[in-house]
Amino acid sequence: MVSDLQSIYSANAKGMQRSAIRELLKLTAQPDIISFAGGLPAPESFPIDDLREVITEVMTNEPTRALQYGPTEGDSLLQEELIKHYNREGMNLKKENILITTSSQQGLDLVAKIFFDRGDKAIVGLPTYLGGLGAFNSYGADLVGVELDEHGMRPDHLEEELKRLHAKGEKPKFIYIIPDFQNPAGITMPRERRLEIIDIAKRYNQLIIEDSPYRELRFEGEPVPWLNALDNEGNVLTLGTFSKIFLPGFRLGWAIGHASLIDKLVVAKQSVDLCAPPFNQRVAGRFLQKGYLEKNIAKIIGMYREKRDIMLAGFREHMPEEVTWTEPEGGLFLFLTAPEYIDMGELFPKALEKKVAFVLGSAFYCNGGGKNTARINFSFSTIEQIVEGVKRLASVLKEAIANHK
Amino acid sequence: MVSDLQSIYSANAKGMQRSAIRELLKLTAQPDIISFAGGLPAPESFPIDDLREVITEVMTNEPTRALQYGPTEGDSLLQEELIKHYNREGMNLKKENILITTSSQQGLDLVAKIFFDRGDKAIVGLPTYLGGLGAFNSYGADLVGVELDEHGMRPDHLEEELKRLHAKGEKPKFIYIIPDFQNPAGITMPRERRLEIIDIAKRYNQLIIEDSPYRELRFEGEPVPWLNALDNEGNVLTLGTFSKIFLPGFRLGWAIGHASLIDKLVVAKQSVDLCAPPFNQRVAGRFLQKGYLEKNIAKIIGMYREKRDIMLAGFREHMPEEVTWTEPEGGLFLFLTAPEYIDMGELFPKALEKKVAFVLGSAFYCNGGGKNTARINFSFSTIEQIVEGVKRLASVLKEAIANHK
Repeated sequence: MVSDLQSIYSANAKGMQRSAIRELLKLTAQPDIISFAGGLPAPESFPIDDLREVITEVMTNEPTRALQYGPTEGDSLLQEELIKHYNREGMNLKKENILITTSSQQGLDLVAKIFFDRGDKAIVGLPTYLGGLGAFNSYGADLVGVELDEHGMRPDHLEEELKRLHAKGEKPKFIYIIPDFQNPAGITMPRERRLEIIDIAKRYNQLIIEDSPYRELRFEGEPVPWLNALDNEGNVLTLGTFSKIFLPGFRLGWAIGHASLIDKLVVAKQSVDLCAPPFNQRVAGRFLQKGYLEKNIAKIIGMYREKRDIMLAGFREHMPEEVTWTEPEGGLFLFLTAPEYIDMGELFPKALEKKVAFVLGSAFYCNGGGKNTARINFSFSTIEQIVEGVKRLASVLKEAIANHK
Repeated sequence: MVSDLQSIYSANAKGMQRSAIRELLKLTAQPDIISFAGGLPAPESFPIDDLREVITEVMTNEPTRALQYGPTEGDSLLQEELIKHYNREGMNLKKENILITTSSQQGLDLVAKIFFDRGDKAIVGLPTYLGGLGAFNSYGADLVGVELDEHGMRPDHLEEELKRLHAKGEKPKFIYIIPDFQNPAGITMPRERRLEIIDIAKRYNQLIIEDSPYRELRFEGEPVPWLNALDNEGNVLTLGTFSKIFLPGFRLGWAIGHASLIDKLVVAKQSVDLCAPPFNQRVAGRFLQKGYLEKNIAKIIGMYREKRDIMLAGFREHMPEEVTWTEPEGGLFLFLTAPEYIDMGELFPKALEKKVAFVLGSAFYCNGGGKNTARINFSFSTIEQIVEGVKRLASVLKEAIANHK
């Protein structure tokens, strides 16, 4: 083969690494391992009967439309249904404010593509979503991390970093925020914090990317308004997805924002894949139109609330007192913090030996931190697996802590 | 909104333009226009009944697998079925040689992403596929065009350009070839020409990207071996798609090549959209397994052969003698060349007035050439539309030629 393949890759490609999570998922796919590692929805959360009904209708009534190419902007029915969904929550969207993407991961890729030249800065949480880090790094971004506290990204640290970067003429391209049930931390930003972040962004003339895949999965408490709705001046681009509230197997997401920004994303998407799958979009549009999404969300909330409760009860019962964790009001994850002397990377093989898996928290830190943390998923495993898996995980941690003493 | 949005876009995004074809398709979507513009398959080519059967089976027997996330490399069943399909045609593929992409347009995007830093060179045909140009340009590539003759890319010109570029230290990243029923030219490269191109590529240590969306749609004559099979040393990366032989609405394609190159594409794809839609992949895999793809291809060939014959008959009967065109042995397009004094861009509004549309050939020339050319699609229109549309097109051309005299 071409002898110097490695040397002819782009600078960005030379730096590309396999996603730690996706490689790990292969390791943990053995059937006897209880995996809290992935971010997979529960298979029993899929609305199979309702979906079968809708697919049959689409294949009977409008197959030709669903099977042909479609506009890059998205299927008009799905756009309309999503607009209704969001406008009920205080947004004020028109068609030019929404682009249907082929997964919300594609939304992150498109955002990175239209903003990053190599070496450009962006602000991300410490920790933040691995897939966001992967997409941004794949365009050579130089990411600046800002610590979270129990209310999400710290405004004092954010302002400090912005001041420092602006002074050096290194204005970040955007601030990347996951406001609801943050991945991996499980934290939700209260309204007051959202307003503070928006205010800082406005003063520094910074765009906010609001990534919200879990928002609808709230088990308790009142929803906090979208950053996008609180801002309402087009400074926020919001990314959404069906993966956690409907199904991941269709690969459908969307981007919501100012018309001129959406327009640029549409142009970028034209050469990326022409359009999101029209069949999947049409089926999803009809599914929403029939009110099946709300019904499915209600079902999932009940299911995951129970799983979270059981996981938290297990944590309280079994975890050594040196270990702390977040108690999320929704979403799929909680975040575990062990004492600083514990390296979860060293502990991981021992956990696998005991047939339990998680994701290393360090994978979510763009600054190499978080070595004593782990992301724990509670959506995918069965209740029996959660009960047993938490015991195994606790025993591995107890052992490591005892060995240290 | 953020006040300097235009100025913070990446250098590549600043240069992005809307795809001429996709914008044009909107213009030509009025129902009374006979459009030879798009590259759409005929709606009546979709295997609706067979597909409905397969979808029902998947939703009954394996819904959970089809609706969940899948591996980035692709659904294993679909990979296996495609490997069988290709190995029957002289390839020697294993799983590590194939990546399922979310459309073959994504294949082009991934190739561009892993190879291009801004300003990097690549060799493309004059003319070549607009979507390839769009994907390569979106990463800042500096494309070098090489003329085609009636057998495809000219080897003498190719070698000349390679010699010139290598001497300047500007080695191209790859040579982009559409060997079968080339889009837009409708030309198929004979075996001898393929061997010449492979030989030149080898001597200059250049990768070849073989893009072949139409290959299976051969109306007559013997298939010519794949560049990939003729080379058989991993110097060729082949892109394929279901869009023209099955349906575009699933957005499924694939890349075939040396394991190390496929591996780099897999890593790139992880952060682009995690995986192609698992539902679509599973259905497509079962569709192939049942032998329905071969059956559907046979149906489409009969359908398009008739349309091509009727279009060519109309051209022979009605076109002024100053106009020439290619007579493709398969695929979706023929390419029209008017006298040099005709600017098809000026003629286009007059054609729209007469309710017939085509794509400007110049859109397929990276060097601004081809102003007197047009791409004519014969797959999408009905036979009645083809008969009438050719008359309209011929009369517009006659008028323009008469006006010049």
